[in-house]
Amino acid sequence: MKKFINSPEDVVTDALEGMAIAHADLLKVCREPDYIMRADGPVRGKVALVSGGGSGHEPLHGGFVGRGMLDAACPGAVFTSPTPDQILAATRAVDGGAGVLHIVKNYTGDVMNFEMAAELMQAEGVDVRQVIIDDDVAVKDSLYTAGRRGVAGTVLAERICGGAAEAGADLETLTALCTEVNAGTRSMGIALTPCTVPHAGKPSFALAEDEMEFGIGIHGEPGRARVKLEPADRVAEMLMEPILEDLPFSAGDEILLFVNGMGGTPLLELYILYRKAYEIAQQHGLKVSRHLVGSYTTSLEMAGASITLLRLTGAMRQAWDAPVLTPALRWGA
Amino acid sequence: MKKFINSPEDVVTDALEGMAIAHADLLKVCREPDYIMRADGPVRGKVALVSGGGSGHEPLHGGFVGRGMLDAACPGAVFTSPTPDQILAATRAVDGGAGVLHIVKNYTGDVMNFEMAAELMQAEGVDVRQVIIDDDVAVKDSLYTAGRRGVAGTVLAERICGGAAEAGADLETLTALCTEVNAGTRSMGIALTPCTVPHAGKPSFALAEDEMEFGIGIHGEPGRARVKLEPADRVAEMLMEPILEDLPFSAGDEILLFVNGMGGTPLLELYILYRKAYEIAQQHGLKVSRHLVGSYTTSLEMAGASITLLRLTGAMRQAWDAPVLTPALRWGA
Repeated sequence: MKKFINSPEDVVTDALEGMAIAHADLLKVCREPDYIMRADGPVRGKVALVSGGGSGHEPLHGGFVGRGMLDAACPGAVFTSPTPDQILAATRAVDGGAGVLHIVKNYTGDVMNFEMAAELMQAEGVDVRQVIIDDDVAVKDSLYTAGRRGVAGTVLAERICGGAAEAGADLETLTALCTEVNAGTRSMGIALTPCTVPHAGKPSFALAEDEMEFGIGIHGEPGRARVKLEPADRVAEMLMEPILEDLPFSAGDEILLFVNGMGGTPLLELYILYRKAYEIAQQHGLKVSRHLVGSYTTSLEMAGASITLLRLTGAMRQAWDAPVLTPALRWGA
Repeated sequence: MKKFINSPEDVVTDALEGMAIAHADLLKVCREPDYIMRADGPVRGKVALVSGGGSGHEPLHGGFVGRGMLDAACPGAVFTSPTPDQILAATRAVDGGAGVLHIVKNYTGDVMNFEMAAELMQAEGVDVRQVIIDDDVAVKDSLYTAGRRGVAGTVLAERICGGAAEAGADLETLTALCTEVNAGTRSMGIALTPCTVPHAGKPSFALAEDEMEFGIGIHGEPGRARVKLEPADRVAEMLMEPILEDLPFSAGDEILLFVNGMGGTPLLELYILYRKAYEIAQQHGLKVSRHLVGSYTTSLEMAGASITLLRLTGAMRQAWDAPVLTPALRWGA
């Protein structure tokens, strides 16, 4: 296993310490239980947004903590749900008196632990709502979850709700907005290589030199099919087809097009995929008015990519464009 | 060779088309000869900054075109110098009447072709200066260059000079500033895996499961030594030692600390390296007042990292902090 780590046990701790030092202006990293919060939090009178999940998907979620996005993120061990006490501590720390929204990727452990923490907070008199993100069209059930998985679309939900929260939206409005973003978001991923979880020490699966895993999850869990290597334009078609079939986008719809790298994919290749995905969107009469290209929801060093489409409303677009200031996304701030 | 490409011949063209579509608000991609320029360029009365080099190092250089950084970038074929006609066309296109600065990584072909273009522009009556970046302490001469190579430190030069140019610095001042930034910058890199140039179709070198290439260049060219795998903290020490020996930083110096990923390295691992590099800097009495962590100067999908230290002056810090709005770096804008 070739990685810049000290030991499998220390990966998350060491990385959190690095983040804390590098981004001391934006973030506060709290330890035992571990969570990352806005340096200027809690923000009085603002609804707080908390997310989290297994580590290994960076910059998701810790890199998205800051003004206009998350108030806190709870990093679990690599590909492992955060514990209820992490979520509880984070929620308590960032509660600004206007309620807290938990944005949770649909994995059984994550959902359960966030629910547990939410119940405890409710008992303390804090209004906590939960929206589950399940944007992955690849598979119905998987190794880690019942129902669809939450993947790269989570970034869009965190950003849009974060923008709206900063602008003063209340908990009711944000819960509805997040639900609407999730309902209008579809993602599909593909992998060229596996990744190696430090604790496991060996690749999560094996792919032949001419094979791709189509419909890959963000933990290297199996997808729809193992297929032969195809040119990038064909790959973009393969990813766009199930998305467009699943969510009946109509000609004239305004969308956000997001091409996400899984960690080991050069930016050059993401732009090649974006080119074709954009062309396909246009052929369907969709108006791509916003975009994101980069490695924002990763699977350690996996070479792979996903495409996400979000049907944008005016409110979503406005929240997307609002200032954001986090380690991984920043504009207008 | 597993890549999201259509054919080795089309890699750069397809990616440029993707960039053009994704970043139409910031960039204009001109074709035949190929270059990327600011959408709002040429900026009248401002010194124009032009850089470029082989493709495969993205976001360097095209991702750094925009307000507060480069006016134009010339992408060569993968790991291949841009041609004089590309550089000439780009320089002509962004010349705003206040002269043009070429920021050139020290590779023989790059330097020669930028010089040729500069001479032709001089003949047209445009004042063009050249600053060569050679921040790599790893080797004296290499496969591609006489003298030291230009590597990740280039990003810092482009940003700082870009910030100063936007604030109105003249060509004389910018040439001196760029020279000073280069003189105060040192980098050192290491690789865990090779990368595959699309045209070659096979990895540029082979490393055993327990080996690292110490002092790697950004084209997979050999470094100082092939060494055994070490824990991340030791790797950070190995990278910091030759930097600190080479440039006599003094206790109390203010520095910018930059941990760069080579393309296939998870962000998690970059933060682990940053943590230790910061600690070492502190032990030497250096004051880390600015930082950068991420994959900004890559070698396709290579798993590897480099550390760069820059001794900051007040003028450099001010230019670093000024607004920047490019696809890959943006703040305050």
